[in-house]
Amino acid sequence: MGIEAKRKIGTLPRGPKNLITDVPGVLVGHRTLTGSDLNTGVTVILPQDGHLYREKLIAETHVINGFGKSTGLMQIQELGTLETPIALTNTLSVGTVSTALVRHMLSTDPGIVSVNPVVLECNDSGLNDIRRMQVREDDFSAALTAAGETFEEGAVGAGRGMSCYGLKGGIGSASRRIRIDGVSYMVGTLLLTNFGRLSELRFDGQPLGRQIQHLKSRMEKEPPERGSVITVIATDLPLTARQLGRLARRAQNGLARTGSITGGSSGEVVLCFSTANRIPSESGGLVSLQMMSEAGLDKAFQAVADCVEESVLSSLVHAETVSGMGRTRESLSDYLYLLS
Amino acid sequence: MGIEAKRKIGTLPRGPKNLITDVPGVLVGHRTLTGSDLNTGVTVILPQDGHLYREKLIAETHVINGFGKSTGLMQIQELGTLETPIALTNTLSVGTVSTALVRHMLSTDPGIVSVNPVVLECNDSGLNDIRRMQVREDDFSAALTAAGETFEEGAVGAGRGMSCYGLKGGIGSASRRIRIDGVSYMVGTLLLTNFGRLSELRFDGQPLGRQIQHLKSRMEKEPPERGSVITVIATDLPLTARQLGRLARRAQNGLARTGSITGGSSGEVVLCFSTANRIPSESGGLVSLQMMSEAGLDKAFQAVADCVEESVLSSLVHAETVSGMGRTRESLSDYLYLLS
Amino acid sequence: MGIEAKRKIGTLPRGPKNLITDVPGVLVGHRTLTGSDLNTGVTVILPQDGHLYREKLIAETHVINGFGKSTGLMQIQELGTLETPIALTNTLSVGTVSTALVRHMLSTDPGIVSVNPVVLECNDSGLNDIRRMQVREDDFSAALTAAGETFEEGAVGAGRGMSCYGLKGGIGSASRRIRIDGVSYMVGTLLLTNFGRLSELRFDGQPLGRQIQHLKSRMEKEPPERGSVITVIATDLPLTARQLGRLARRAQNGLARTGSITGGSSGEVVLCFSTANRIPSESGGLVSLQMMSEAGLDKAFQAVADCVEESVLSSLVHAETVSGMGRTRESLSDYLYLLS
Amino acid sequence: MGIEAKRKIGTLPRGPKNLITDVPGVLVGHRTLTGSDLNTGVTVILPQDGHLYREKLIAETHVINGFGKSTGLMQIQELGTLETPIALTNTLSVGTVSTALVRHMLSTDPGIVSVNPVVLECNDSGLNDIRRMQVREDDFSAALTAAGETFEEGAVGAGRGMSCYGLKGGIGSASRRIRIDGVSYMVGTLLLTNFGRLSELRFDGQPLGRQIQHLKSRMEKEPPERGSVITVIATDLPLTARQLGRLARRAQNGLARTGSITGGSSGEVVLCFSTANRIPSESGGLVSLQMMSEAGLDKAFQAVADCVEESVLSSLVHAETVSGMGRTRESLSDYLYLLS
Repeated sequence: MGIEAKRKIGTLPRGPKNLITDVPGVLVGHRTLTGSDLNTGVTVILPQDGHLYREKLIAETHVINGFGKSTGLMQIQELGTLETPIALTNTLSVGTVSTALVRHMLSTDPGIVSVNPVVLECNDSGLNDIRRMQVREDDFSAALTAAGETFEEGAVGAGRGMSCYGLKGGIGSASRRIRIDGVSYMVGTLLLTNFGRLSELRFDGQPLGRQIQHLKSRMEKEPPERGSVITVIATDLPLTARQLGRLARRAQNGLARTGSITGGSSGEVVLCFSTANRIPSESGGLVSLQMMSEAGLDKAFQAVADCVEESVLSSLVHAETVSGMGRTRESLSDYLYLLS
Repeated sequence: MGIEAKRKIGTLPRGPKNLITDVPGVLVGHRTLTGSDLNTGVTVILPQDGHLYREKLIAETHVINGFGKSTGLMQIQELGTLETPIALTNTLSVGTVSTALVRHMLSTDPGIVSVNPVVLECNDSGLNDIRRMQVREDDFSAALTAAGETFEEGAVGAGRGMSCYGLKGGIGSASRRIRIDGVSYMVGTLLLTNFGRLSELRFDGQPLGRQIQHLKSRMEKEPPERGSVITVIATDLPLTARQLGRLARRAQNGLARTGSITGGSSGEVVLCFSTANRIPSESGGLVSLQMMSEAGLDKAFQAVADCVEESVLSSLVHAETVSGMGRTRESLSDYLYLLS
Repeated sequence: MGIEAKRKIGTLPRGPKNLITDVPGVLVGHRTLTGSDLNTGVTVILPQDGHLYREKLIAETHVINGFGKSTGLMQIQELGTLETPIALTNTLSVGTVSTALVRHMLSTDPGIVSVNPVVLECNDSGLNDIRRMQVREDDFSAALTAAGETFEEGAVGAGRGMSCYGLKGGIGSASRRIRIDGVSYMVGTLLLTNFGRLSELRFDGQPLGRQIQHLKSRMEKEPPERGSVITVIATDLPLTARQLGRLARRAQNGLARTGSITGGSSGEVVLCFSTANRIPSESGGLVSLQMMSEAGLDKAFQAVADCVEESVLSSLVHAETVSGMGRTRESLSDYLYLLS
Repeated sequence: MGIEAKRKIGTLPRGPKNLITDVPGVLVGHRTLTGSDLNTGVTVILPQDGHLYREKLIAETHVINGFGKSTGLMQIQELGTLETPIALTNTLSVGTVSTALVRHMLSTDPGIVSVNPVVLECNDSGLNDIRRMQVREDDFSAALTAAGETFEEGAVGAGRGMSCYGLKGGIGSASRRIRIDGVSYMVGTLLLTNFGRLSELRFDGQPLGRQIQHLKSRMEKEPPERGSVITVIATDLPLTARQLGRLARRAQNGLARTGSITGGSSGEVVLCFSTANRIPSESGGLVSLQMMSEAGLDKAFQAVADCVEESVLSSLVHAETVSGMGRTRESLSDYLYLLS
């Protein structure tokens, strides 16, 4: 199932790869672990090509639903900067990946004695024997080494064991090009999708989830949601941390359009960064910044909502059917013929 | 256009009136001002039938987009209680209505020397000469006096001059009955809708806004959004302020389903209260509370998202076409035949 | 009692007037209302000398204790800008002063149809018959007209009826000069003090409140606190809204040093703005900003804590003894001889 | 140096041990690591004697300064409950201790597939070669096993390598008994102190830091603050999460009284829990709660401020002189004779 099979959401033009890596400098890598009741992994997002600790990027986070164990958000909220790659993994492996990320940062600079690792998570216990805690520090390193401008979506990396709308979820990504005052900017998103019930799913407005339910012979009672979703937004728009927070808060619009009610147990976290300004870690004086005026933000908001909606659908479309822990999560690609 | 003409959103059963007043004790009243370039008013929500200052209700607020001038939210966030009726009006009349609400509260109890008036607003300058500041303190009193269990939706009260998705907006309301552990509860919403661009409008998933745009002969460039939306949620579920905040945060899901990207200039504020527990203002000791366990909240979240979505559509369906300030905002009811 | 009688807090040099108006462009004016059980008023802070709506200043707020009725904070938190003068008055007059402030802004520009009035308040019902709501719109105008670089502290303007640590409180101000990377900046504060119990008062560490209590023949039981305190911080340091929030959060340190436990009923609100960058209201493109690096902020934090502490003491030292509503609040100046 | 040597702060009576363990059910244990350039460790707080995951406690957090890497706060903010013991350690060991805490929780119940580990941290790189990351998972287990009603303060456990006001900091604790409506309650605090500059230190108002500075022959320039402080508050008062947040926000008052300006690099985090209500993890229905009315909270606020102030001083008084990384941090106990 190719990227071209995805329905395009909204009216803004896509970036060339329709991936978060359309934002210049952003790279993504996966490490996927599979085996008997083993469906998990690590995904790493590299936000820029320089030394991120020495030249931090402006960032902000938004918590839609705080039922989650992601780490590193508090310092971003205080200082408005991101100083490490972003790692995604399963809930119980946050500690291990956090340690691996710290160790990696220490290796890049002998002067670092404090660093804020950003590790975001969803719970893949539906398809993965999460209690065995099988992610190792090396798996983070492998994902980091694998990082590039192209990457797979679907049941890969941290998305290997995730379920979304009762189907197989995982990694989804999209990008949009916007023009403000004649200048072109890129907005890209990467989601780790692990939320929602089948009956809720909407595909560009169409109640596809209910249609799929009607097809299935035994209409089992849907279990309560025990999911979560991580949204990472990248842009080369020059924005302050306050403005990035405004973008981050529009992720909920994209998620809601796919049908989600943001279930009580669905930890939903958004992280948004801009590659446009670099904040030197050693500076003691004035820093000059560029920021977009508020009036220009509406196009960016639209891009965020569209990218997030499309990333959810893309994670479903690209994910293959996966079994584990006595369950099977089907691929949405088997049902796309239902789209009118 | 009757209530029955509204499409029902979602699968939960509606309350008998499908209005926020299905939550026992809640009353709503309007005062509508019309005239030459005069399209404004006041809407009042009475949260319970007792003396609200002496027996406060638990409440919480959520700010989706803080570009707005609503007042009274800060104290609710600190203390988790609501002690006055809720008034809605236009942006520049918040001060006058706030004074009227204070004066009303003083009249109910000679001991009151401090009270937190809750006045929420949208900007109706598109159809109303807002700079003339024509709302008077008496208009608040008239709305209060008019409060009852039934009330009109559409271009009435504070909704008289509002525009939504390029059409005539205003007051919309809905309710849902949910059952948790065999007990029946009610969730109701009332919205003041003044946001969105026509091209974005979705009616239960269908891109009705784009269809209407195609119908119109001259495809004028859509102006940037300068709107806002107020959401009030009432329930008789026993919930703490923290839990009411969780409900309030699901309003964004309902708004987003109707197509909104939460434009930058769209002040979006949510206020959520429960009628189940009463907090005596004079007590110095222990208070016993009932609260729903977190596991029971998903149905309430679904009810909030569905009620909010339906309230937006209901405000559009019920609003008549209104002209003012050289503009005309059409009623959506003229286009409902387009629904498939 | 002259300014020179105040004890200097901390080691940073004061500005020439030791007032918030040492920050270039900031002006302050009072309107004081006195009479039988009438002790109230309005204080206005003009943040810069241009047209504030067209050239907004970057600002942020912090709520220490949200038990209060101040208005205008939500929009500042969203947009990070201040677009009106700041008015201070009594709790029940917020609506009237808000209306007056809106009317003033409309008069400055025929194009304004939406404006965010910032009105901060404390409750002066201890010395003022607040239920009579005697502040008029003209009183705001009078305070605005009176604004200048010098102004009185103590029982004047909005501070006329306020009580602090069981003594007469009101308006207090201070300023500090700081040098960062060889450049000189100014930090100034203005407080409206209406909080605390006599036994808690510390004067630069000395437990002066307990000493005063011991002096008094009848040791009446102290009433519970029913107060509040407003802190306005101005600076010409170039800071983003996020950074101004960091400054605002240090106001609590200065308040706490004077002995406060931030009583439950003490609404405590901080507003912090910078005069260094101007944000044009009409711009649609990129804005260039200067911001201080985080490493430079510690001196500003120290200046805020010292200015806030000294402003509390200054409000007490400058306030004359005032009677009303059957009570008398004594001036601290009568007890300064107790200082060791 | 015995506990009795500490100056008592404020007027409320202390609990029998003057430790956080005066709150019934609370236990504390340390694991201290010492050696060549090795000064670090783990401290564990057990909040109650039952199975915390199955019977959660109500909790809330407050971030004074988010420049820190503590983990587990987000879920507490969303759900208002604490489901694991609280671990304290050094900044770069959060991941390892988090993994150990997760493993411990899994071992207590075969059904757990998701758990929110709470690990709070300060940076001890001043006395500890933090880059060697020498804390092991076993060290967490050792601290857990050591937990009891009595425990050491000072340079022990997570406090081994911490510095406070230029002196040796570490673990400090205190408790206060309060009576509300004739019922006795306990408030206790435990702090990990690693903040402040010597010149700022105040001991119950007395500028002891400046006095110590004057004593020292070479008046070296003080380095900028690179510290942090963790505050844990326990109480048996029945409070909601919202109310516990109000208590948590008063920790800043106690910290400020000891002289702190909350330096920019000082990560300051507060966690507050109540042992009075238990929230069953499996329940789906109504839960009955007791909550103290707001009017009763002032005594609890006073207890928090006093306990936090005294805990800071207690950490300094109990800490022995420690050397490492080419530095020596002296014990405050050597200077207590300066107290007037």
